[in-house]
Amino acid sequence: MSNINFIGAGNVAWHLAQALEDAGHTIVEVYSRNMAHAAALARQLYDVQPVNSLDFTGSRAEIFILAVPDGAGLAVLKDTILPPSAIICHTSGTLPLSVLKDFTNRGVFYPLQTFSKNRKPDMSRVPFCIESDSELTENTLVALAQSISKTVYLVSSDERKVLHVGAVFACNFTNHLLALAKGLVEAEDLEFDLLKPLIEETFAKALAAANPADVQTGPAIRGDEQTIQAHLKYLKNIPLQQKIYQLLTESIRRAEKQ
Amino acid sequence: MSNINFIGAGNVAWHLAQALEDAGHTIVEVYSRNMAHAAALARQLYDVQPVNSLDFTGSRAEIFILAVPDGAGLAVLKDTILPPSAIICHTSGTLPLSVLKDFTNRGVFYPLQTFSKNRKPDMSRVPFCIESDSELTENTLVALAQSISKTVYLVSSDERKVLHVGAVFACNFTNHLLALAKGLVEAEDLEFDLLKPLIEETFAKALAAANPADVQTGPAIRGDEQTIQAHLKYLKNIPLQQKIYQLLTESIRRAEKQ
Repeated sequence: MSNINFIGAGNVAWHLAQALEDAGHTIVEVYSRNMAHAAALARQLYDVQPVNSLDFTGSRAEIFILAVPDGAGLAVLKDTILPPSAIICHTSGTLPLSVLKDFTNRGVFYPLQTFSKNRKPDMSRVPFCIESDSELTENTLVALAQSISKTVYLVSSDERKVLHVGAVFACNFTNHLLALAKGLVEAEDLEFDLLKPLIEETFAKALAAANPADVQTGPAIRGDEQTIQAHLKYLKNIPLQQKIYQLLTESIRRAEKQ
Repeated sequence: MSNINFIGAGNVAWHLAQALEDAGHTIVEVYSRNMAHAAALARQLYDVQPVNSLDFTGSRAEIFILAVPDGAGLAVLKDTILPPSAIICHTSGTLPLSVLKDFTNRGVFYPLQTFSKNRKPDMSRVPFCIESDSELTENTLVALAQSISKTVYLVSSDERKVLHVGAVFACNFTNHLLALAKGLVEAEDLEFDLLKPLIEETFAKALAAANPADVQTGPAIRGDEQTIQAHLKYLKNIPLQQKIYQLLTESIRRAEKQ
């Protein structure tokens, strides 16, 4: 079991710290620029010191988990002083391992999940993407991830970037399409709730299929030109939505031909 | 309880017929151009005659449910002869009520759900959109829908079209984005399974939120220009995916400003 510090007290730190503590690790200190944030997370944990200094020279923590927004991460690193043999790892899908080049023992500890403070994730199902340029550090981080999750992968910085692009398509963009759909139906005084069972089934089906492309439905895949034209005409006063409709229809058709 | 005929034996007929029978209605005959399809559905039901003639002059069915693909629907209607006072309704999200203008008692009985033969839907949660130009027919169809579902709405042809556009965004397009994400990660020998917990959580979160826009995450909403440019560069050899990334990123940013 490890002694762990968190640098950052946002959504990722919030859920990781609790999961690691539940697995028997000790969280020693939580840093946040904003002491109130550090204190709020500390209150969720067993015996943790909230701090707002990045000088950890005398700390008994062995592993430092950096869990701050990507931009802030780099700024924080400049001021961070670790105990001699400590490991530092970041939790970002985007940043390469090399942002930690000024530290001796470095790695990536990236949970491929979206965290919100008020939703407790099933951490055992969260895939952890681990990377390090030292076998010892890699082994330590893999063991740490395996203590809370069943799915732990070694993923290089390049691979992590691809996963992140995939996640933008599969999650950020799909979420936005749901928001657009809500806007469309509510503009005509219809309830978004009407679409919810269909949305649930669509995703359950896509995830159960060998490939979501196998269960593609709708006018584009049917080649139903009459419906497509009627929909484009309907969207003529909201040009951005019309362009999205056109482009995704074209993409579905091209994918089918491949 | 009603005596019901199905014109069509595809996925929609398959699940509707069984749900209606379970609710105590009697399915009398099932028509399909292909007798084997009609017979396959009839075998799932209690005491049903598969037929391949559209002359129902002497049938004891009171309600005829047209459940064939949109294009085929119109062709079938030309040859359909109903008993004198029978009701006919179609199950399409796209076709207006007026395609049934040659019949006296007509309506729309549209289940807003995607059906696959091998997945049994929870019919009680499927929203049914009912329309008719006669109050008597409307009442009959509403009662029929309420016998199998808790959510039954009166929806005009225009409103149904908007729901269908919304469904294309929320379901067909999101499914396609999942297929694109799979293609992206598999092109780099990474497993799509890595993204699945994230996808599940994204959708659970979007549907639990008051508005999916409230839980939008990712580089576009964060204004993380560095990540966006890195992703666009990564996509430079697949121009259609790059265009989709660009357009949806722009759309997320504009939505935020509104």
